[in-house]
Amino acid sequence: MRFLSETSADGVHERLFSLDDLPGVLWTPAGATGPRPLILLGHGGGQHKKAPAMLARAHRFVTGGGFAVAAVDVPGHGDRPTDPEFDRIATENQARVEAGEPVAPLIATFQALVARRTVPEWRSVLDALQSGGHVAAGPAGYWGVSLGCGLGVPFVAAEPRIRAAVLGLGSALASADAAARITVPVEFLLQWDDERVPREQGLALFDALGSAEKSLHANPGPHAAVLPEYELDSNLRFFRRHL
Amino acid sequence: MRFLSETSADGVHERLFSLDDLPGVLWTPAGATGPRPLILLGHGGGQHKKAPAMLARAHRFVTGGGFAVAAVDVPGHGDRPTDPEFDRIATENQARVEAGEPVAPLIATFQALVARRTVPEWRSVLDALQSGGHVAAGPAGYWGVSLGCGLGVPFVAAEPRIRAAVLGLGSALASADAAARITVPVEFLLQWDDERVPREQGLALFDALGSAEKSLHANPGPHAAVLPEYELDSNLRFFRRHL
Repeated sequence: MRFLSETSADGVHERLFSLDDLPGVLWTPAGATGPRPLILLGHGGGQHKKAPAMLARAHRFVTGGGFAVAAVDVPGHGDRPTDPEFDRIATENQARVEAGEPVAPLIATFQALVARRTVPEWRSVLDALQSGGHVAAGPAGYWGVSLGCGLGVPFVAAEPRIRAAVLGLGSALASADAAARITVPVEFLLQWDDERVPREQGLALFDALGSAEKSLHANPGPHAAVLPEYELDSNLRFFRRHL
Repeated sequence: MRFLSETSADGVHERLFSLDDLPGVLWTPAGATGPRPLILLGHGGGQHKKAPAMLARAHRFVTGGGFAVAAVDVPGHGDRPTDPEFDRIATENQARVEAGEPVAPLIATFQALVARRTVPEWRSVLDALQSGGHVAAGPAGYWGVSLGCGLGVPFVAAEPRIRAAVLGLGSALASADAAARITVPVEFLLQWDDERVPREQGLALFDALGSAEKSLHANPGPHAAVLPEYELDSNLRFFRRHL
């Protein structure tokens, strides 16, 4: 892992890094030293590791909870090159949607394909960060909705260091089997008027989670609405309870 | 309104009162004076105004938020005499359940009947408390689940002074029409494994609420499980945001 640059603003120290050509960012409290529990953020489709909502979330978790927070770009996103295979599938999917096929199963299948690459990538990021001095070994958290949920469910299911996860805006079509293997506490966000993930599919994904402690938070609004500020506060308290 | 007795414990001052033979209790911060916003609590079926969970909730809202909190007994509960009409219907319902009828519609019809009496009772309690010096005129809150939801939905729909409500463990069978007339912010609790209110009926009640701001919180467990402590904390923050 190579650190490429460092800046500080608003109480948050930001380090851009690269791990085997995987571009990432690590946020920690400015002026603080020593390892602290990590929350890994997964970004949404068409977004990237430093999209505005990602930065806002990272700053809240760092300044409000003293956590380390990290994010990397998903293949084909942010500072990563376009991916010919994913581009081809996305183009095919677009044609199938235009031909009248329902979009949710196509998204689900695509996310499952991408997850085969991101699960090992994110595990290697956890390995590297936990041996770099800023991030504590042991329990970590994960936050991801929409694409970040489609990729996050198989990641959380596979990675025992993740002890608490915020997920949501995702569908049981993608990952019900992996969801059933998740046993850590989950806070699950659902948009009640989601036009991309049918409500029953979102509820089915919450239902499929194997966790004894899981809490569904549903609010009115479409898929891409800005999540209520009180949900971010709730996410922070959730991670403070469990990490 | 006559105050019958006063005691203080754990930072909470408790006054028992009677309003036209309606027995009630008012909790305020011990050692504090002056009017403050009221949260009215509705108790569950078979419970009463000072049941242990009611006391715990009242103490949390008084000590954590500085609120005034009040509760009265529902007809046939607590310190109120048994009600021959309600007893007769309950006995009939029991026979119908034993004969194989689904329980949810019977509960819903019964709660709608009781609400015709409790809605005017609770409005008169609000009138009396708001002119008694301890409770601020204007915005107030309501908290009630199960029976407290079945009676609370028509109350909140009818009473413009209620500006924020925690509801839940209730069914759209009872009160979808009244729910549609509610426009204030609502935090709605649902038990994911509720054996008395079918999940789809609980979700349908949340769906029916006319409020622009409404948030569904669903957790695993049966109808009468102790609600998670973090939900009570969330309820308190919800009332602090809106009252």
